[in-house]
Order: sequence, then C-alpha cells, then structure tokens
Amino acid sequence: MLKVAICGGSGYAGAELLRLLAAHPEVRITAVTSEKSAGKSVTYLFPHLPQYEALTYEPLDREKILSKADFFFMALPHAASQVAVDFFVSQGKRVVDLSADYRLRNAGTYEEWYKVPHLFPRTLKKAVYGLPELYRKKIANARLVANPGCYPTGAILGLYPATKGRLIKIDSIVVDSKSGTSGAGRQSEVSFSYCEVNEGFKAYNVSSHRHTPEIEQEISAAAGKNVALNFTPHLLPLDRGILTTIYARLSKDTDPAHVHELYRKAYRNEPFTRVLGLGRFPNVKNVRGTNLCELGVAVNKRTNTLVVVTAIDNLVKGASGQAVHNMNIMMGFDETTALKSIAFFP
Amino acid sequence: MLKVAICGGSGYAGAELLRLLAAHPEVRITAVTSEKSAGKSVTYLFPHLPQYEALTYEPLDREKILSKADFFFMALPHAASQVAVDFFVSQGKRVVDLSADYRLRNAGTYEEWYKVPHLFPRTLKKAVYGLPELYRKKIANARLVANPGCYPTGAILGLYPATKGRLIKIDSIVVDSKSGTSGAGRQSEVSFSYCEVNEGFKAYNVSSHRHTPEIEQEISAAAGKNVALNFTPHLLPLDRGILTTIYARLSKDTDPAHVHELYRKAYRNEPFTRVLGLGRFPNVKNVRGTNLCELGVAVNKRTNTLVVVTAIDNLVKGASGQAVHNMNIMMGFDETTALKSIAFFP
Amino acid sequence: MLKVAICGGSGYAGAELLRLLAAHPEVRITAVTSEKSAGKSVTYLFPHLPQYEALTYEPLDREKILSKADFFFMALPHAASQVAVDFFVSQGKRVVDLSADYRLRNAGTYEEWYKVPHLFPRTLKKAVYGLPELYRKKIANARLVANPGCYPTGAILGLYPATKGRLIKIDSIVVDSKSGTSGAGRQSEVSFSYCEVNEGFKAYNVSSHRHTPEIEQEISAAAGKNVALNFTPHLLPLDRGILTTIYARLSKDTDPAHVHELYRKAYRNEPFTRVLGLGRFPNVKNVRGTNLCELGVAVNKRTNTLVVVTAIDNLVKGASGQAVHNMNIMMGFDETTALKSIAFFP
Amino acid sequence: MLKVAICGGSGYAGAELLRLLAAHPEVRITAVTSEKSAGKSVTYLFPHLPQYEALTYEPLDREKILSKADFFFMALPHAASQVAVDFFVSQGKRVVDLSADYRLRNAGTYEEWYKVPHLFPRTLKKAVYGLPELYRKKIANARLVANPGCYPTGAILGLYPATKGRLIKIDSIVVDSKSGTSGAGRQSEVSFSYCEVNEGFKAYNVSSHRHTPEIEQEISAAAGKNVALNFTPHLLPLDRGILTTIYARLSKDTDPAHVHELYRKAYRNEPFTRVLGLGRFPNVKNVRGTNLCELGVAVNKRTNTLVVVTAIDNLVKGASGQAVHNMNIMMGFDETTALKSIAFFP
Repeated sequence: MLKVAICGGSGYAGAELLRLLAAHPEVRITAVTSEKSAGKSVTYLFPHLPQYEALTYEPLDREKILSKADFFFMALPHAASQVAVDFFVSQGKRVVDLSADYRLRNAGTYEEWYKVPHLFPRTLKKAVYGLPELYRKKIANARLVANPGCYPTGAILGLYPATKGRLIKIDSIVVDSKSGTSGAGRQSEVSFSYCEVNEGFKAYNVSSHRHTPEIEQEISAAAGKNVALNFTPHLLPLDRGILTTIYARLSKDTDPAHVHELYRKAYRNEPFTRVLGLGRFPNVKNVRGTNLCELGVAVNKRTNTLVVVTAIDNLVKGASGQAVHNMNIMMGFDETTALKSIAFFP
Repeated sequence: MLKVAICGGSGYAGAELLRLLAAHPEVRITAVTSEKSAGKSVTYLFPHLPQYEALTYEPLDREKILSKADFFFMALPHAASQVAVDFFVSQGKRVVDLSADYRLRNAGTYEEWYKVPHLFPRTLKKAVYGLPELYRKKIANARLVANPGCYPTGAILGLYPATKGRLIKIDSIVVDSKSGTSGAGRQSEVSFSYCEVNEGFKAYNVSSHRHTPEIEQEISAAAGKNVALNFTPHLLPLDRGILTTIYARLSKDTDPAHVHELYRKAYRNEPFTRVLGLGRFPNVKNVRGTNLCELGVAVNKRTNTLVVVTAIDNLVKGASGQAVHNMNIMMGFDETTALKSIAFFP
Repeated sequence: MLKVAICGGSGYAGAELLRLLAAHPEVRITAVTSEKSAGKSVTYLFPHLPQYEALTYEPLDREKILSKADFFFMALPHAASQVAVDFFVSQGKRVVDLSADYRLRNAGTYEEWYKVPHLFPRTLKKAVYGLPELYRKKIANARLVANPGCYPTGAILGLYPATKGRLIKIDSIVVDSKSGTSGAGRQSEVSFSYCEVNEGFKAYNVSSHRHTPEIEQEISAAAGKNVALNFTPHLLPLDRGILTTIYARLSKDTDPAHVHELYRKAYRNEPFTRVLGLGRFPNVKNVRGTNLCELGVAVNKRTNTLVVVTAIDNLVKGASGQAVHNMNIMMGFDETTALKSIAFFP
Repeated sequence: MLKVAICGGSGYAGAELLRLLAAHPEVRITAVTSEKSAGKSVTYLFPHLPQYEALTYEPLDREKILSKADFFFMALPHAASQVAVDFFVSQGKRVVDLSADYRLRNAGTYEEWYKVPHLFPRTLKKAVYGLPELYRKKIANARLVANPGCYPTGAILGLYPATKGRLIKIDSIVVDSKSGTSGAGRQSEVSFSYCEVNEGFKAYNVSSHRHTPEIEQEISAAAGKNVALNFTPHLLPLDRGILTTIYARLSKDTDPAHVHELYRKAYRNEPFTRVLGLGRFPNVKNVRGTNLCELGVAVNKRTNTLVVVTAIDNLVKGASGQAVHNMNIMMGFDETTALKSIAFFP
C-alpha cells in the first residue's frame, strides 16, 4: 500500500483527490493538511465523504508529514507551493504538484505572469509537465510532476494534433474557454456568491489570464517555434466543466475527414481522450465526475478554419483526476485505477 | 392610440412584446394570434401577465386581423412569415417582422441558408434591416422593418465600429457567441428540457448557423467588400442573455485607448448602447429585461488582436425590445418609450 | 419632491430600493450610505443601475444625513438599526425600517430571539407593523413603520383570512417555506458561494428561525389568542422568490369553494395580493421583480386540512417593494406608484 | 453471470440502471428495450455512457426477451407495466418493477388513484414492497419486487421509526416534499422545458399526488391502523434529489436526544441510511449519485412537534439504486455491490 499525503486538502481539488483515492486499492491516505480546518474531520467539512469520519486535517508541518507518507499531492496556492514541493522532492519523495509553480519551464516567464520569483530553479528543471497524452514516458520516470492547469488541459489537447501535424497557421489561434465556477475554488468572495454567478455569464482576465503562457509553452514545443495566442476565459453558471472552442486558420485546404482522422489517430490509444464522430460535439455535462476529455472537430470551409471543441471536468481531468493518473503512471499502477467512474446524467 | 396586432403571440418573443407594450402609452393591442392557443386568454398562458386576462388568442385570419390594427408585429416561424408579411405590407400597413424572412437582402442567400425560396422579392426590396444604430433614418421611413436576429444584434454592434474604421483585417474574424436557452423559443423538445440543459454547456451548429450570413451581410456592407467569418453559437444554462466574444487581427499596431475612443464615439448618441470603461467587460446578468447592448473592448498586444465582448438580452435587444424600438422610430414616438425598464439584480 | 435617504444601500435590499425609486416621480434620492463602499458610485457597485453614476455612497454620519432628507429607508443589519432609527424618528423624520428591530411589539420577545436588548422601548411603541393588507390605516398615520420580514410576509398573508375567519385549529399550523438565495443578502460566506448552493437544497434553522415570533405575533393578534406554530425555512437554488406552503387542520368540514371565496373577499381590494382560481397554485417565477403576493388555496378532504400556498419576491414584496408601498401610504402618494413593474418570463 | 434485461431503458431510470450495472461484477446486460429508440445504441442516446456503444435498443418483444435474460428490471410507464410483469413472473423469472403497478396491495386503491383496474390480482399478491429497510427478508425470497416510488422512499424512511415507536399522533402528519426535475422523467412537455423550470418553484398535485396512498399504506402498516396524511410535492430547479420535511405532533413530551437515539437504532445496521448528528440536517447535494438516504431529526419544543428531514437521490435510492439493491438481496449478492459510488461535490 502506497502511503499518500495530501497537502492542502480542504479545497475542491483536495476533496476530489479524497473522493477518487477512496476507491484506489493500492493507496492509503495517511495525512491531509489544512491550516484553517486543522482538527476537523474531512467528513465534517465535506458531508458527501462519510468514509473519512476518522481522517482529521492537520497543519502542514513538513517534518511531521514527511515521515507519514511516500507520495505527496500538493494542492497549495500558487507561490506557497514552491518551497513545500522543493522540500519533499529533495527528501526523495515523489510529488504531484497541482499548483502552477512548476509548470512553466522558464523561470522568467513564471515571474512575469505570477509576479513572484522562482526560488528553486534546480528543482524546476526536474519537473515534468503532467499531461500523460504528451509526456507519458517522462512522467513514468519523474520524481516531480507539475499537474497541468484546467484551461491548458482542454486547450492543449485540442490544439496538439493539428499543431504537431502542421495543419494550422500558428499565428492565428483563438482559444475561447468557458469554465464552471468550481474552477475558482472554494470561494468566500462576493463575486463568486450564488446570486452573483447564477443567471450570469461574463468574460474575465481578457488577454491576461495566467494560463496563457502554459498553453503557449506546450503549443510552441509542438510547433517547434514560439507561439503567441489569444485566450479568453469565461465564467459559466454551473458547477463543473470547461468547454474550449478553438479556432485556427488551416495552412492549406484540408478535408474535414482528414482532420478528423488525424485527431482519432493521435488519441487512439489514450484511455481518457475521446474524439467524437465527425459532426458531433461534446457537452460538459457528459464528462462530469470523469477523467475524460471529449473532442469534436470541424472545418469551416468558407473561411478555411479549423474549429475544435473540447470538454473536460475541470476538477477531474483538469486537476485531481489527472493528478491520480500521473500517480498511477509514476508508480506503475494500471493507468485507469480509480478513474473508471461514469458520469451520471442528468 | 396606435392599434397594434401581434401575429404569433404565444412564444417568448410574443410574451415579451406584450410585457413591453403594456407600458406603452401610445399603443393599444387589439389582436394577438396563436393557432394552438386560440380561445385561451393571454394570462392563462402567461400567468406573469395578469393585465391581459381579457385579451384572447385568435387564429391568424388575415382579413379579420387586417381590419383590427394599423401596426403589425410578426413573430411567426421563419418561412411562414413571408406570405403574411407581404399581405399586410401590400395592404398599406406598417410591419415589424421578427422572423428571418426579410433580413437577407439577397434572396439567393436566403434560399441557400433557409432551404426555401423567397416568394416576394419585391417586398423584400422594400425591407429595411432594423438595427437602429446603423439604419435609423431608413427605419423612420420604412413600411417594413426586418428585425435583426438575436446573435447578429450582438455581433454586428460589436464589429461595426472597428470594421467601419478600417481597424481590422477583415478575413480574420471569429465570433464566439453564448446564448441563454430562451433563444430557442418555447420548446417541447427533449433536448431543451430542464434536465438536459441544466449543468450542461455545448456548441451547436458549428460553422453552419443561419445567423452567419446575416452578420456577414452587415459587416460586408460596413467593410465595403465581401466578408466571410467564423461564427459558433453555444447554449448557456440560463434563461436570458447573449454574450458574444469577438476576435479580429488589427491592421496595424493600435493603442487600446484609441480603439476604446472609437467605440465610445460610434455609440455616443445611442440610447441603448453602452461602451464600458477600458478594462471592464459586460455580464449578461446586468442587461436582463432591458433593451441595452453593453460592450467591452480590449487589445491583446501580444497577438495584435482586437477583442470585443458584447452582452444583450436576447428577448429584448435581441428581439422584442428592438422591435418596439423600431416601431417607435417608424411612428415618430420618443425612441425610448416603453423601453426604460431597469434590470433587476440579482 | 420628497428627499429620500437610504441608510445601508450596498446590499440587495438597498439596490432594489434604488431600482424601484428610480421610477418614482415624487421622490429624489439625496443620500445613500455604506461604510465599506463609501466613495464609490452606486453604478460601480451595481452595473445594472447605470442611472446612478453620479450618486456616491457615503458613511452613515447621522447629523449630516439628517439635513439631507425628509424620509429615511433603513436597511441596516439587525441591532445596528435600533439606534439610528430612534435618532431619525426623534428628529421628526418619517422612517421605514427594513431591519427586524421594530417589528416585535414585545421587547422581551425581541431580546429572546435576537439576543440583544431593545434600548428604545418608547420608540418601539410608536412603530407600526408595515403589512398594508392588515394595517393600512395605521401606516398612513405612522412616523415609524417596521417593514415585515420576507418569510412573515408570505406566511401571514397566507394564514390571515383563515385565522381571522376562525376556519382553522390554531394549534395545528405548519409553515414550510422555501426561499431564494438573495434572502441571505450579499454574501461572502463559503456556504452561500455558487458551488455550495447550486444543485443543492436543504432546511436550515429548523424550528429556530427568528421570523417565527414575527409570524406568531400577527397570527395571535388575528386569532385573539397566543399561537405557537411550526416554521421551517429552506434554501432554494435560485435568486429570488419565497414559496410558502401552509397546513392547518380545519375546525369543521368546510367546502373548498367556501374557503376560496373567503380568501378572494379578504384581498378583493388589495392592489398587490392575487388569489388564484381554485385548483391553481403560484410559482415564484411569475412574481419576480414585482410587489405581488400570489395565493393558491386547497382543502385536503381526506385529512380535513387547509393547504395554502403563497409566492412573493423576497426582495420586493418581501422587502423593498413593500417598503416603497409603505412610503406611498405614509406620504399620501398613489399606493402603486413605482410598483407597477411586470415580471418578465422566462 | 446473471443475465439481465431492462425493459424500458431509454428514460432516466433506465440510463441510471445501465450506469450502476456497468460496475456490477455479477451481472451482464443482455437486452434493453425501447420502442422509440429501437435500433439506436445506448451510447447514441446517452453519450455519457460510452461503454454501451455495442448495446442496441430493441422493441419489447416479450417472447424474445424472455429467452435472453433471467432477471428483469421493468421501467415501463404505469399501467403498461402490469401485463409485462405478469408475463415474466408467470414464466418463472425474477422481476423488479420500477412502475407503481404492484406497489399498492389493495387493487381497489390502485384503481382509485391510477384510474385503471388491476388485471392481475394473483400476481399482485405475490409482490413484495421493495423497501429493504422494512422488508429485507421478504425481498430475499420474492420473485416479484415492487420498487418503491421516489417520494414514498424518503417519506416512509423518515416516518417509520417514529410511527413504529408510537411517538407521534398519527392523524397529524404533514409530508412536504421537494423534488428535482428528473423525477418527471425525460420530458418533452413545455412545462418541463428549461426556461419554465429554471428560477421557478411551485407546488403541484396538491393533496392529490398518486404517491399518497403508497406512503399511507406503509405508515398504516407500521401504526397498526389506517392513516391519512397530508402530502404536497414541489418542483425544484435542480436535476436530482428529493428533500422531504415531515411534521407530526408528538404523543407526549419527548426529549430530542431520545428521538434521535430511536432513529439511530432503527437504522443502525442499514448500509444506505444515515441518521445525522442531532442539530444537523441533510442537503440533497451530498447524496447525488448515491444510494443513501440521509436523515436529520428535531423536536420543536414550543409546539411539541417532531420534525424529520430526509434527503435522497430520486433516481438512485428513489429508483434505480434501490432496484439494484433489491436485486442484490434477491440474488444473494453482497447488498452493496455496484452501489458504493461516492457523491461528487460540488
């Protein structure tokens, strides 16, 4: 049994890790931390998890936690994660970090977008970007995996095959994303209160969201040159799900069936990526609670533009499910362990 | 008192006309038609309209209705509207048609997208596209006004100043729209039932929605050349509102403040169009029930792209409110009569 | 023009007062207070109110506000309202207090349920309970009106005719209420964040909600003896509306039509109370944004029980609309001034 | 492997059976019927169930289905179920019927409420009411189990311990229930379309809902005498969940802790019934997707009234989950097989 600790377990990503790992036969959760909720049971905070009545939040005392577990999920806020991750990695532990701190390979880019310096460039170099569809082999050998952001997961999976396949003009990309409200975390701000979000819809952080460089990093790598793209996030009045609509000019006239085939092939062997039939498009409702990314592909012949639509559950494939997937790969478990749950509908 | 008839008054656009006109001091509703609900009172069908207990739906008997009113709002389905509109116009009545039948100036384009021929090309020629911000003077003199589609209203108002001002590369336009569910009308299809829409979000009619040629017609006119653009509608789990996010490559480096000023000036004297301060973006929740179009403008300097976000209430500015606005202009009433209602929040 | 001040204008009740009074031809708002938002414009805080760009929140400096207005709406938190209300009343101003501080005629009952003593028993004696359907004449002569709580408004209007008419066994009353989330005010608590409320439904403050003694006070007065009743509030995943389902054993076999007639008669001349036809029941959606209370009445013959269902908008009839109604009565304005707005649907 | 057929598998209860049974190691689904969707794959109709791409709906040809399976879940409409159930039972098959046709032991009561006669009184006599908490042993030996209605499940579990324990006055019961919209099934009626349900809340079938006699049957049995009670269902704007608030006068002064203890004991050994700590009450959001019934218990000392609140997922514990539970008991499988899934939150 793998002894697992969750650092920062009182938010939605933490709760989701607890939900998923409850069904993992190879894992035992030995510690879960929270400063605010220290001393309370998980079930007290999250009544939907009655099986954790006996598991109590504790403050993040690094030395104490170090001895309790061999594998660490870090769900701390950005910047706060840097030092804790470095500590556990340097002590020889395996870590999946759900924060943004080790995602950007270039420390300068990190500082530019997150407004704090990166203090652990050597640890940063060891980090592998945890998108299994792109980096499975590296993840298998990694000690530190930087779990992708929720928006980047849907955007990169939607852009990758076309970029790698040289189908699109790389300077024409538009990524228009719409996220459920749980993406903002467990919130006490008025702007995320029920009455402000319900029956509303808006764009936010237009052209300035921090997930932009993360998407650009991976698409640049796939393209073999630097890419800048347009990314606009929007806030949906629903709990879970990100739908991303991607536009890019095709390099030349391309048959829709050809594009569709390219996408099918790219993800043929992937357990959590489903390219829908030509003419069908995903709905976030169909992937709720699951680790799936569903994709729909179209070509607008009148403008010679590729349109890709992707849907994920931001808390599962966009966070905790992908984290468990990464752990499974790192530990040599069957990849789909604890990730087979089916969306319920409605 | 202007005697007004509403043909097709049992849908949401009809109900909204009834709501708005109830507060119009120059108007008396003398007939409202519905085949299915003939014989029922408006209040029976729409309990939120208790003041219409005595107004009863009647079948659309053209001769009979003709004698009852001097002004006609047509809220019939596409294709069905053609002949009824032609009849009332040919009898010398003033008409605002909320269907798509007289919006496209080119009958061939109409047939291509709506799959039915246009049988009244001479009446079509007389029709004025009823977007007051663009065609106020023509509307004032029109007998037949084709009320714009809901998506085109938000899209055209968002693109017009930049297109007219030659700010953007006209072949790079992406229009990504998200509409509340009332845009589909009063529905008895399973796919619009509560459980299918709630907690869901999806794209539909990707690159093939019928509002595409309507947007292109007006943007082509503003650009002075033919424009093809990318338009994707999405279905929001909320009642009312369309948010449209527009992307277009700038022709040259342009200061955000300059773009913002251009938009401010374009709509300076418009009673129903509000350009928000630079850095602020609209939320559909703030315009519910009103005839307002709110706009936010940004420039992505990294990609040299203009981003415009517009918000309207699809049933008011996107349908019945704009129809009343057009009537006010056609009849010489104060433009804002019956359209001053304030959104309630939350 | 009546000069009006709103003390505590940055919450939802305050915003609703501002919305309603914007259309009041006899009123000018000369001051609106908020400690937290002092210095900000109303429009900045509430973008749905663009007409208040020039009205700025100020701190509640009693002396300063005193000189600015002749009529005061107090929307301060419970307990905090006591002293401010006493001050303005003692200075000869007319006041409608939206807090609970002057609703309970018995200061001991107030202290028992609100856990603070009442410091102004003499002013309390002058207060009139502001339910126009019961106390119109007293309101007309009052200097201080205690605006009813949201739950009590729906509960009392539903129980009053049957109680007054001696139809029911007074010790058998169950009041089961369900409120939209705006009833909790503009909230920064996690438990009112979107993700916690959405797709959820629960009871709260079971048998212990502070509105219980307020309902009991008025029903006891109508019954002519002390009444204790069961009241359970629930939290609905929607913005606005309270639906209250009331059960009470009938004193003797009673015909449904008879009960219905009694209710019709009781509210025959009321502008804001609508008894629906026998067999029809209200929906909160039909009264959103309006000052209406809609009622449906039934008799369960198998258990000989009266069932009454009432629907109001908690922010209008349940708060700010009723407050404006009270002002209209106090000032001799037409009662329905600024309260004629129609619900929009959907 | 048990060969299982689902008759009527294109509604929400059918989809939920398919979801749950996908994880059942002892079961293989060999047939699923639907008249309307015959020839389509399950995945085509329900994209959230990608594992059923190869399972195709077929018309309900009784002889053909008979040979395909040994266990039958019947999810047909009321009345239509009677004859099909009788056929499979008479052929020696085991059946769980999710319709109402075999729930009421008295055929006269069935005819009174469902307006059709019962044609198979002999089969009706063999039917066991499938609430495991009350009838586990009978279920284990049954050939035909009548799966309880969604409302009765929450109501009976909430009333049973107090009734059996003689705590309450049996003629004073009020059952006020609020159900998510999936309770109405997969709907094509306008009144269940998104825009009609969203932001609305209403009572329906006041004092006349067909689940009334079902609740009364079981509470009468527990009380040992005939009980008539008040039952009002309401429609919640959310997908899943029933919250039931129950009121009953206590027979004598009773300590809350005593009542709480009684409930704890009653359900001590039940895998799917959870009595929360005194002072805590359930939220439907915490049981979504699970087979749990959560209960909160209170005593209103001022009125000497018991208040019980229960929460279930209407499609799981209120339908398909309970059906699988019944199958597990009938077949001697571990009771919780395929029913361990955890609610996700939010």
